[in-house]
Amino acid sequence: MSHSAATPAPPYYAVIFTSVRTDGDHGYAEEARRILELASNQPGFLGFESARQDIGISVSYWASLEAIQAWKAHAEHRRVQQRAKDWYRSFRVRICRVEREYGF
Amino acid sequence: MSHSAATPAPPYYAVIFTSVRTDGDHGYAEEARRILELASNQPGFLGFESARQDIGISVSYWASLEAIQAWKAHAEHRRVQQRAKDWYRSFRVRICRVEREYGF
Repeated sequence: MSHSAATPAPPYYAVIFTSVRTDGDHGYAEEARRILELASNQPGFLGFESARQDIGISVSYWASLEAIQAWKAHAEHRRVQQRAKDWYRSFRVRICRVEREYGF
Repeated sequence: MSHSAATPAPPYYAVIFTSVRTDGDHGYAEEARRILELASNQPGFLGFESARQDIGISVSYWASLEAIQAWKAHAEHRRVQQRAKDWYRSFRVRICRVEREYGF
């Protein structure tokens, strides 16, 4: 990923996921790759951005709150959610409505 | 920064800034440090998170759209905005209303 996500004109929705990892991989890298591939194929998925240094920040973009809810409830996604404490010391999820966007 | 920002109960606002850097520093590190310190002292500033790998993602949190507008228009902030093309190949700014938040 070497550029910002190409999202449509607002309004749309963003899920900001910030996290601090536990030590060790615990199968994280492989599950993260699989779950991102699955997310990208969900209805209403618009894009994804991610970076990690001291904390990780991942932002996924969605067409509607309903699309976010459906993805949150997806069986495979629920399965990995249950492993959250293996992978994260702490995390925050923020559900946002994107009101305006600009840049170059 | 080693944890997610401690923000109040929603609603509040987030500015998601995603960027790809140019090569070389061009005074970026020092200006970024100064401008973050200045931002943290603005009325309505609630917190900040940042990480960079292939792209950089910085999220600042604000109490209101008015606080975001006032910071955007701040003279020192405008001065560094004019240097954007020295530091960034591309960037996107997304202004969001945070509707819900959870985590551990």
